Amino acid sequence: MRYELYYWPGIQGRGEFVRLALEQAGADYDDVARHDSGAMMRMMDAKAGTKAGVKPGPNGGPPFAPPFLKAGKLVIGQTANILLYLGARHGLAPKAAAGQMWLHQLQLTIADLVAEIHDSHHPLGPSLYYEDQRAAAKRRSAEFWQQRVPKYLGYFAQLQAGSGGAYLTGRRLTYVDLSLFQIVAGLRYAFPNRMERFERTIPGLVALHDKVAQQPNIAAYLASERRIAFNEDGIFRHYKPLDRD
Amino acid sequence: MRYELYYWPGIQGRGEFVRLALEQAGADYDDVARHDSGAMMRMMDAKAGTKAGVKPGPNGGPPFAPPFLKAGKLVIGQTANILLYLGARHGLAPKAAAGQMWLHQLQLTIADLVAEIHDSHHPLGPSLYYEDQRAAAKRRSAEFWQQRVPKYLGYFAQLQAGSGGAYLTGRRLTYVDLSLFQIVAGLRYAFPNRMERFERTIPGLVALHDKVAQQPNIAAYLASERRIAFNEDGIFRHYKPLDRD
Repeated sequence: MRYELYYWPGIQGRGEFVRLALEQAGADYDDVARHDSGAMMRMMDAKAGTKAGVKPGPNGGPPFAPPFLKAGKLVIGQTANILLYLGARHGLAPKAAAGQMWLHQLQLTIADLVAEIHDSHHPLGPSLYYEDQRAAAKRRSAEFWQQRVPKYLGYFAQLQAGSGGAYLTGRRLTYVDLSLFQIVAGLRYAFPNRMERFERTIPGLVALHDKVAQQPNIAAYLASERRIAFNEDGIFRHYKPLDRD
Repeated sequence: MRYELYYWPGIQGRGEFVRLALEQAGADYDDVARHDSGAMMRMMDAKAGTKAGVKPGPNGGPPFAPPFLKAGKLVIGQTANILLYLGARHGLAPKAAAGQMWLHQLQLTIADLVAEIHDSHHPLGPSLYYEDQRAAAKRRSAEFWQQRVPKYLGYFAQLQAGSGGAYLTGRRLTYVDLSLFQIVAGLRYAFPNRMERFERTIPGLVALHDKVAQQPNIAAYLASERRIAFNEDGIFRHYKPLDRD
């Protein structure tokens, strides 16, 4: 089965967590919007289910926002939900139901962190430009690095340290490790100064990042043009004033 | 099996979405922190797994934050993850896997909305007091009501209108309906002025709210002392300046 991924074509964004899982799995997928820019919007236009597209019903319906994944007849929205689905099917999650639920819980905590990363440059709301909320972004970024980064990354670092392996839940790589790779890479891009100092306190997560980057499928992906470069339209944005204390 | 719910005892907060599901299901549960205020913190203290508490491993580990639910040996964190688990076991979700995944997707979209509701009074970060971010909260609340509420509640209203029943996915009540009840009730508490005007545009969701409130188990719960009153420590906070245009 060929998956269809629907996400904004110009950014890594939340879609990148899905792309990394598909790439590591060696799954056959079409990143649809990269070659058909109208396709995603046509699916979103069909929200009411009155046109062609995804009709609502008890077993499915139109997604609120991208990314969403088409897998045969299924249309799966919400990043963590997509990974819950893919993880079980591609060896990126434990086989036991309890393990899958635990991994999903961790991914949902990463989703909370991702929302806070976005808020660091958009504290007054996603509909306003960064340029219209610079002062608030500076305050929020400072609070984010003082309080939130240590809390989130400290938690994940503790789990990795206690896992008995290089990865977050042990010796086997899961989709959560792929996502943590992206968190470390993204924070390095957005806040090179702050992150350089902070990452000395989380050597286990840095090693995890490096080990993920060395996976053959991931290394090939990162070197390909399928990997969109970080930029100032995504989750991780580099604005110099936000990177200064 | 008697469930144990761990959540802050003085607020509805995110725990309320779990409480509503447990109450509607008529499940046997202990809201532990209501009578043992140290219990939750002891579980959280055990994050590293070095003391008594939840030890990390491939199939489970300590939660990042409350709410979490103890179900036998399982410790399940993240609100939407808990509801995914409870829904399938208590008739609050479809039986088909596709239906459960769709419902979970909707709950994750509600979780995104809940985070934005919290940000409306805490735009500069969760670690600062409201009093230290009033001006930013006023701007964020305005943007929230101009852009975000219509987008989120418009989406859910469209789904309800197309469902062929009173509920979001049809004629059967699910945990997502319980959560939408809470969203409507909470927005009425926090923003009585703005919500009174807005809810004229979403009659189907208001009717859904009323229908949930009339469920015998929910009505009994709302009238009991188990239902904590809304207050200014939770997700939904009533600050008059934020309710004015």
